[in-house]
Amino acid sequence: MSDVTTKWVYNFGAEANEGRAGMKNLLGGKGANLAEMASIGLPVPPGFTITTEVCTAFNSAGRHYPADLQAQVTDALARVEDAVGLTFGDPAKPLLVSVRSGARVSMPGMMDTVLNLGLNDETVRGLVSASGDARFAWDSYRRFIQMFGSVVLGVDHHRFEEIIEQAKIDAGVVEDTALTAAQWQEVVAEYLLLVETETGKPFPQSPEDQLWRAIGAVFGSWMNQRAITYRRLHDIPADWGTAVNVQAMVFGNRGADCATGVCFTRDPSTGEDVFYGEFLVNAQGEDVVAGIRTPQPLSQARAKPGEVSMEQALPAAYAELLTVREKLEQHYKDMQDIEFTVQSNKLYMLQTRNGKRTATAALRIAVEMAESGLITRDEALMRVNPAALDQLLHPMLNPDAPRTLLSRGLPASPGAASGIVVFSADEAEMRAQKGEAVILVRVETSPEDIHGMHAARGILTTRGGMTSHAAVVARGMGRPCVSGAGGVAVDYGTQTLSAGGRMVRAGEAITIDGATGEVFIGYVQMIEPKVSGHFGTMMGWADAVRTLKVRSNAETPLDAETAKKFGAEGIGLCRTEHMFFDPERIGAVRQMIMAGDEDGRRKAVAKLLPFQRGDFISLFRIMAGLPVTIRLLDPPLHEFLPHGDQELAEIAAALGVDFATIQRRAADLSEANPMLGHRGCRLGITYPEIYEMQAQAIFEAALAVAAETGAAPVPEIMIPLVGAPRELEITRALVDKAAAAVFADKGQSIAYQVGTMIELPRAALLADRIAKSADFFSFGTNDLTQTVYGLSRDDAGKFLPHYVDNGIYEKDPFVSLDRDGVGLLVQMAAEKGRQTKPGLKLGICGEHGGDPSSIAFCQEAGLDYVSCSPYRVPVARLAAAQAAIGNRVDRTS
Amino acid sequence: MSDVTTKWVYNFGAEANEGRAGMKNLLGGKGANLAEMASIGLPVPPGFTITTEVCTAFNSAGRHYPADLQAQVTDALARVEDAVGLTFGDPAKPLLVSVRSGARVSMPGMMDTVLNLGLNDETVRGLVSASGDARFAWDSYRRFIQMFGSVVLGVDHHRFEEIIEQAKIDAGVVEDTALTAAQWQEVVAEYLLLVETETGKPFPQSPEDQLWRAIGAVFGSWMNQRAITYRRLHDIPADWGTAVNVQAMVFGNRGADCATGVCFTRDPSTGEDVFYGEFLVNAQGEDVVAGIRTPQPLSQARAKPGEVSMEQALPAAYAELLTVREKLEQHYKDMQDIEFTVQSNKLYMLQTRNGKRTATAALRIAVEMAESGLITRDEALMRVNPAALDQLLHPMLNPDAPRTLLSRGLPASPGAASGIVVFSADEAEMRAQKGEAVILVRVETSPEDIHGMHAARGILTTRGGMTSHAAVVARGMGRPCVSGAGGVAVDYGTQTLSAGGRMVRAGEAITIDGATGEVFIGYVQMIEPKVSGHFGTMMGWADAVRTLKVRSNAETPLDAETAKKFGAEGIGLCRTEHMFFDPERIGAVRQMIMAGDEDGRRKAVAKLLPFQRGDFISLFRIMAGLPVTIRLLDPPLHEFLPHGDQELAEIAAALGVDFATIQRRAADLSEANPMLGHRGCRLGITYPEIYEMQAQAIFEAALAVAAETGAAPVPEIMIPLVGAPRELEITRALVDKAAAAVFADKGQSIAYQVGTMIELPRAALLADRIAKSADFFSFGTNDLTQTVYGLSRDDAGKFLPHYVDNGIYEKDPFVSLDRDGVGLLVQMAAEKGRQTKPGLKLGICGEHGGDPSSIAFCQEAGLDYVSCSPYRVPVARLAAAQAAIGNRVDRTS
Repeated sequence: MSDVTTKWVYNFGAEANEGRAGMKNLLGGKGANLAEMASIGLPVPPGFTITTEVCTAFNSAGRHYPADLQAQVTDALARVEDAVGLTFGDPAKPLLVSVRSGARVSMPGMMDTVLNLGLNDETVRGLVSASGDARFAWDSYRRFIQMFGSVVLGVDHHRFEEIIEQAKIDAGVVEDTALTAAQWQEVVAEYLLLVETETGKPFPQSPEDQLWRAIGAVFGSWMNQRAITYRRLHDIPADWGTAVNVQAMVFGNRGADCATGVCFTRDPSTGEDVFYGEFLVNAQGEDVVAGIRTPQPLSQARAKPGEVSMEQALPAAYAELLTVREKLEQHYKDMQDIEFTVQSNKLYMLQTRNGKRTATAALRIAVEMAESGLITRDEALMRVNPAALDQLLHPMLNPDAPRTLLSRGLPASPGAASGIVVFSADEAEMRAQKGEAVILVRVETSPEDIHGMHAARGILTTRGGMTSHAAVVARGMGRPCVSGAGGVAVDYGTQTLSAGGRMVRAGEAITIDGATGEVFIGYVQMIEPKVSGHFGTMMGWADAVRTLKVRSNAETPLDAETAKKFGAEGIGLCRTEHMFFDPERIGAVRQMIMAGDEDGRRKAVAKLLPFQRGDFISLFRIMAGLPVTIRLLDPPLHEFLPHGDQELAEIAAALGVDFATIQRRAADLSEANPMLGHRGCRLGITYPEIYEMQAQAIFEAALAVAAETGAAPVPEIMIPLVGAPRELEITRALVDKAAAAVFADKGQSIAYQVGTMIELPRAALLADRIAKSADFFSFGTNDLTQTVYGLSRDDAGKFLPHYVDNGIYEKDPFVSLDRDGVGLLVQMAAEKGRQTKPGLKLGICGEHGGDPSSIAFCQEAGLDYVSCSPYRVPVARLAAAQAAIGNRVDRTS
Repeated sequence: MSDVTTKWVYNFGAEANEGRAGMKNLLGGKGANLAEMASIGLPVPPGFTITTEVCTAFNSAGRHYPADLQAQVTDALARVEDAVGLTFGDPAKPLLVSVRSGARVSMPGMMDTVLNLGLNDETVRGLVSASGDARFAWDSYRRFIQMFGSVVLGVDHHRFEEIIEQAKIDAGVVEDTALTAAQWQEVVAEYLLLVETETGKPFPQSPEDQLWRAIGAVFGSWMNQRAITYRRLHDIPADWGTAVNVQAMVFGNRGADCATGVCFTRDPSTGEDVFYGEFLVNAQGEDVVAGIRTPQPLSQARAKPGEVSMEQALPAAYAELLTVREKLEQHYKDMQDIEFTVQSNKLYMLQTRNGKRTATAALRIAVEMAESGLITRDEALMRVNPAALDQLLHPMLNPDAPRTLLSRGLPASPGAASGIVVFSADEAEMRAQKGEAVILVRVETSPEDIHGMHAARGILTTRGGMTSHAAVVARGMGRPCVSGAGGVAVDYGTQTLSAGGRMVRAGEAITIDGATGEVFIGYVQMIEPKVSGHFGTMMGWADAVRTLKVRSNAETPLDAETAKKFGAEGIGLCRTEHMFFDPERIGAVRQMIMAGDEDGRRKAVAKLLPFQRGDFISLFRIMAGLPVTIRLLDPPLHEFLPHGDQELAEIAAALGVDFATIQRRAADLSEANPMLGHRGCRLGITYPEIYEMQAQAIFEAALAVAAETGAAPVPEIMIPLVGAPRELEITRALVDKAAAAVFADKGQSIAYQVGTMIELPRAALLADRIAKSADFFSFGTNDLTQTVYGLSRDDAGKFLPHYVDNGIYEKDPFVSLDRDGVGLLVQMAAEKGRQTKPGLKLGICGEHGGDPSSIAFCQEAGLDYVSCSPYRVPVARLAAAQAAIGNRVDRTS
């Protein structure tokens, strides 16, 4: 559908800039930035951009252009001709142009670039005479035929390269640059013959025809299969379309005073404020990346012996480039990725865009730009991807190191690790004690493997998702972990793992990369993490702006120390069941579970009291003066069940009952769906002696640490799995009673709170009534996600990847909080809870507590704090700052 | 806290009736009805009621009465004295009174009755002369001392009875009535001695003192342990309190023209419109129930040889009683339970209340009262407890038959059954084929036991709740079932079950009562159900007023036939996975599941197509012209997994893969929480060929039945376990495509609908988006309850009974829909769904579809239909009618 009033073409350069950087949607990134650069006075060859709307119109109208497009292109081309004083198709002084695609975002798979368009058998001779350089002219023509032939006409580019190779052999030279004008002319003749043979038609000689066919190729390539696949994978709508940029050619290949180059305004790897890039004298576009000649450094300071820097070779152009670099950073207020060409010592800018960078570089650039006043601290905070901070805190693979990929799994816990394969937790521990680096490989892990996971450098499982036991525990410990590597078969019997026909035996080495999910055979070289001063600066700024508190999930003194080091403002979740697996205690725990009556349970529980008290004393000491949220026991009972007859017999002996009785009791305790079974406060209500013991241990420990340190901890006792108001009333009364008893016994008291997890839909739906007995709510979004979706984390691996890959779920709801469903319940519960108690403290302690987009949700929902695993604390601090800034922006916009 | 303006005492009788039937909260049931009877002219001895507010004030003020109570009682007593012309404590003509408790509802455990109060050593002589009957006077005094002594003074009543026994032995007589005045006087002397010995004080002689102590005993008994326990169990608030009724005595024990009796205005067992009751000449109150003499019938028609009816013995009083009976029914418009006394041929009414009755009687009485115009049809419909209808459709134990209780479980499926114990489904089937009646006893049942459950007369399980597999399947089949009998230990090895030290072996008989959960040793005599014409009449009236449609859950032709016979208006849930367990098919089903790739699955699925088509043809034929909702496959996969190596080997052979591969696949398929695993539409999306086959079978069957019967069925294809809008979009597209293919192939088409279960919280929360692809929603409240509560039905037995007993859950949420949580989500989903599609059809197909209180909720939530198991259809029809009437009342009130 054409419309005479629609503007399809936007000029840039030569004082007529109709676009600007903000018009990326219409002009694409390249076109918008060309106009922007030209409008701030940078040397941009004149040209014009055909808008993305034309692309959409073209592809939806059966590859027909809007009726008035041709006239607008003709006008724009005439302006370029005027500006440079050359005429398109002029046999004497021909205007040559480049045709480049440019979508909103850079996108592989589309036609990219055709240079030197406008050349033909006639105009090439005009270029010879106009430039006075026959070799340049014929080289330019052969480049044009090659590019146009391959990308527009579809002739395999190897066929062109074969012709050059043959020409170089015939001429007895090695480098392209050594071929003479006459030899290039012969190459051109062979190219033309090749195109005619391959396409059945002579190479198009009309420049106008060439231009429209190139434009059509760009638009058409938007709908080719590779582009469609890429868009689907990256969630780019097809109706965005691409723009086409037509620009007067400048030539880097016209002699020794010509060059072409690419550069970053700062080092994209370290973030250092140095000019970073490379160039080639007497070269055009693709030569720099093609690797035919070795690109040279820009600054003399960076030149190695034998290299000739641009600063040395083209000092005037280099000086101008330095000015441009300064101007671009001042203008864009960010590190830029630039393309330029020098023609006869004159600099021309062909592209600029924000440069990609490593996490280290992002951090440094943001901090330094803010410190220099170029950007604000808020802007600096928004520049760093919080998730990328994880990289900085863990070893990573040297990107240049060689490696042999064995298989892939899920990137469950960041960092890389190498070690010899072991298949059992006990062996992991034994070998680690001997100083060996081991990778623990299991089909899946269970709480009984914790000592082995701790001893291992990394963990690999073949089953389970991003929130499987292995993944959660590994993240908590800061151990790299690849989980759910379904392509790897583990055979405990033969002590081997195999994938894709390769086998690794116990004792042989593998390397895992928990940031990518990759598993490699053998050792791969690592880079150790270095936490720079910039990190601390950025964290300080984050803390100053964020309103969400950040706590950590921690049970062990080591976790608590790590969390505190990373800036945690207390413990948001201490899972007491994790304290029960210690070999010293597991016997008493099992007796407690297997006891048939209260008396038996009380005896077992009494054995656990001193351990629990000791645990809490350690945590309270580390977190003195800070809140410590302790969740009372919430185990799926089966995790503690004895395995095998021998363990059963031990329990029977300890409890003084016969073997058959204990066997029957074990069978009674097994559950069809442990996730939905006899756990959480259901256990605390049916076996109150367990919670009584835990409450007693907490209060005794708190009084002891208060006396010892003078800084009383603030225990926040959390009741798990509440679904009915009465459950919290009963368990709260039990805790209050235990507190009163300890306080009376010791003659001292301490402030404490009692609250509940909101981790069942019913708790959210009845939050107003539950709030009556609660001092705080902590959203247990792991279990809430499981129940809202009806989806077991342990079993989700069978279809969740398929669902996420195919967009059935927008994202893995265990990684990023589902706003539509889970989030709606969280909001309802927050509102209902605060209706009852306006000051009700609200937090989140699921795995989502360390996920930036989930943290943004927590900010919006009005939560008071997030709690995450220790190594995620910095991520959460930055994400919370971004959420606070984002929230401010949202409110003022 | 007293208040001079508060009225604590209400008069009744003798033309001064200050209460009425509607004042039960203040006057208790007895007091309110005494006033009501007196006010409609029935002969009620005058008296007064002390209100329930006095009870509350008394018990909360440390057992002190309001200050002005005494004056009000004195005034009221004076009025009674005036009315009967006697004076309280008058040595010549003493007024005697009864003191009775009377709460809003009849409540065991409280002090009940003291008669003849006002007698003492002096007034008894006045009574001798006033009545001219010394024997009567001394008998009355001894009765008073006995009642007052035991209930007010706490002397064990056996001690009094021992004295009478000794007196009768001494006198050489058998019956109390044979004792003479002098002998009673001696008994009185011994009674007085006993009281003084036991209490350390003489028996109180002051009538005023007697009165206040009796009143205090009633109020005090409200707080005794038995009463408190009873209130807790029956959810009666303590602050209701009880009233006290003080009433002038009339005497049924004053000679041959005196009597006392209890009766029902209709037969409470059958509902027949006959006068039903018994009386004793020359007796007082408790003699009728005490069994010392055999009570006699009221009407001559009911008298057996040797019996003397009241009609014969006291014709005038009997005639008056008939008039009273008529008057009471006309007035109360319900069957009454009456107590009366005849003194000197004059009738006095002492109590009336609505009479308890069997389900059969309730039905008949309601229908006959409506047919006679006494009540409206709406009132008749409200009179019958829908749940009680279940009794009418199943055999029940003869209430008079002797029995030996073995243990108790849950009343999982109504009806009673006797048979010999078998412990396996195969044996159940084998023995049933030989004509033996068997009870299948299992720890729990699985889908593979279905043939055995079908063959058995009844099912007993020791594990699992009201909605366990056994319970659900048994209700569906109409088989009596007791589930979760945790006190019964089953030993498959020794083929025995045992409970409480008793053992039953395989082959020995037991009897189960699925309506009570009781298990008996041996055979107990049964009463077969008779469905009367009243049942049909009532159902017809119900159908006329209800607005909710009633469908049935059914998979087999037998279920469908039963459902249609009971009035189902279509099938609301056909669970196709139940069709997959047939031995002929299970092999192909297993191949389908175990196949490693699509090709293998397609081969297996192709084998199932003809079976499925045949299944649907049968159902469509039975339901021709009616909607049939077919839920596509939703199995927890593990239910179909092969057991043991032999079955695995068979599958391996059928699939042409090696044993190890199939073993690994079986391990892969096992799930930690099958409830939350790879099931429902997750299966249909990852293995689309299964749903494709089912859709094809449905459409081919529908076209075949349309052609055959001319009445096209309306298939409603239901997608299970949807939690994301995209899941329904994908599966709906798949069904539509299958429909188009079948219609094209056959050259004919048929109307159909596609909808979804709303059985996950997320589906309810996103119902507006899901509704876009849905023609209907069916609330799967079983799974919704499981996920909202985070509670597995299979595992709930470990704590759910404790929770319900202790009021942590108000009721079992699997039996009665939880309005606060699950209900809130259902309402949200209904509203959101209809925002998107105002005409969206809404139904419910969980177990709640047959539960009356849940049906009331469905009516309020605006649902279109409920679907329940076949035997529950009549229950649902009546409950739906009551809900419609209730809703009308709510709206107009």
